[in-house]
Amino acid sequence: MINRISRHKGILGTMVFNHDGIAIKSSLNETTTNFWGSQIKDIIKSGCEVGEAFEEGNILAMIRIRSKKYEVCFVPEKDFILITIHEQVDEN
Amino acid sequence: MINRISRHKGILGTMVFNHDGIAIKSSLNETTTNFWGSQIKDIIKSGCEVGEAFEEGNILAMIRIRSKKYEVCFVPEKDFILITIHEQVDEN
Repeated sequence: MINRISRHKGILGTMVFNHDGIAIKSSLNETTTNFWGSQIKDIIKSGCEVGEAFEEGNILAMIRIRSKKYEVCFVPEKDFILITIHEQVDEN
Repeated sequence: MINRISRHKGILGTMVFNHDGIAIKSSLNETTTNFWGSQIKDIIKSGCEVGEAFEEGNILAMIRIRSKKYEVCFVPEKDFILITIHEQVDEN
């Protein structure tokens, strides 16, 4: 799965974590991977709170954080969390 | 601006806050608006940390939190933060 996703254009990195932020698989180096593992809990927690704010049980499907140059997608699944890092393709 | 955005298909609400989470304008009721005002600081903070993680000064452009039924977009600008709430259009 990671190799297939990593081959998409603009994808800089693909990582899979458990819900505690422990890396299961990653296409990036250990330092970068561990950094993202440390970010997961807060971001997913904020996302879940927003989801639940609408309706109890309203399941969080994805969080996308876009900056000028990059976009990070967090996809929480039952047993793991997928993070992909994309380069912003210049639309001009 | 808010009226124009609010007329888009699937938009349930549009709100504008200052960076302290104080509502400037909103198409939603006070309770709902104040709730989102209280959520802003943590979410934008997480987003900025992610942006900065790549590169110092890497400006946060947008955060999108998608759940099964809704999507919330946070667009931080220099003087305000725009939040739009969208209904997930069923793609089937």
